[in-house]
Amino acid sequence: MKQEHNQNIEKLIEMVKGVRVCMLITNEQNAENLSGRPMGINKIDDDGTIWFFTKASSPKVDEIEESKKVSIAITNESSNNYLMIHGIATLVNDKSKMKELWSSIMKAWFPLGLDDPDMTLIKVIPKEVNYWDSSSSKMVVLFNLLKAIVTGKEYAEGEHGKIHL
Amino acid sequence: MKQEHNQNIEKLIEMVKGVRVCMLITNEQNAENLSGRPMGINKIDDDGTIWFFTKASSPKVDEIEESKKVSIAITNESSNNYLMIHGIATLVNDKSKMKELWSSIMKAWFPLGLDDPDMTLIKVIPKEVNYWDSSSSKMVVLFNLLKAIVTGKEYAEGEHGKIHL
Repeated sequence: MKQEHNQNIEKLIEMVKGVRVCMLITNEQNAENLSGRPMGINKIDDDGTIWFFTKASSPKVDEIEESKKVSIAITNESSNNYLMIHGIATLVNDKSKMKELWSSIMKAWFPLGLDDPDMTLIKVIPKEVNYWDSSSSKMVVLFNLLKAIVTGKEYAEGEHGKIHL
Repeated sequence: MKQEHNQNIEKLIEMVKGVRVCMLITNEQNAENLSGRPMGINKIDDDGTIWFFTKASSPKVDEIEESKKVSIAITNESSNNYLMIHGIATLVNDKSKMKELWSSIMKAWFPLGLDDPDMTLIKVIPKEVNYWDSSSSKMVVLFNLLKAIVTGKEYAEGEHGKIHL
C-alpha cells in the first residue's frame, strides 16, 4: 500500500514538474464567485506539497486567510497535462524558506529580491488529485489520490493507515 | 460604449480561439468540493457564447442541472492564454444545433456520431471574464468584461444599457 502511495505521489510530481503556470482558485467557500488567477509554480516537494511566491498585499492572501480551501487547475496542452488538485493552503512567512525557494526569475515579480517586505509563500498540501490521461482518445480520471495523500501524510507523521484506491 | 463592448468580445474570442482544452468547473454552489474536468472547446460564437459536446449521462450534466453557475479556467502556456471565465451554463438538446457544431474529430468521443442518444450540448454564456497579459512580466487583469457582456446581451435582445468599464 505504501508503495502504491509513493507511485501516486511520483506521478503527481512528474506531471506538475512539466507545468510552469497553473490557475490557483480561492474563495471557494463563498458561492458568490470563485477567484482564479494564473500562478507560476515555484516548486513541488517530494511529498507533493506545492509552493508559490506571492505579494503579501494581494487579495488572494486575504482570501486564503478567510478560507484555506483552494484548487489548482492545470490545462497544459503542450505538456499534455490536465490536473485538478484540491488542497489546503497555508501562508508561510519564513525568510529562510523563501531563500531556499528563490530563483533569479522571481525578480520579474519582486525586483527588490528577498528583501521585499511585501512577499509571502503559499504552501498547498494536495488532498485530492484528479488527472486525465492525455494519451487516451477519451479523457478519463485514472485515479484519485485523496486517500493516498491523506494517508501518506499520516505515514510521514508516524501514523499508519489503509489506502484504498 | 458599444464599440468598447465589441472590442472586448473580440478580444475574448481571439484568446479562446487559440485554446483547444479548458478546465470546466461545476458544482460551485456546493462548498464541499468543486468539480473540474478538461473539456475540448467546440466553438465560441460571435457574441462570446462557448459550446461543448458532452455525454448526457456524465456527472457534469447532473451538476449543471443542479446549478448552472460554472467557470472556465484556461492556462495555456503554448498560446500564452490565461483566462478565468465565469458564466451560466445551459444544457441544449437540439439535434440541429449538434449537427451545426459537429466535426469528425468528435468521433473520438462519440463513435456513433450524431445518432448517439447519449449526447448533449453545454452552452456557456460568459458573465465575467478575466484575462492576463502574458507579454507583461507581471500578470495583471487588464479588464473585466462583466458589465460589457451582460449589457451586450441586452443589446442583442434589443435593449440598451450603459457600459462602465
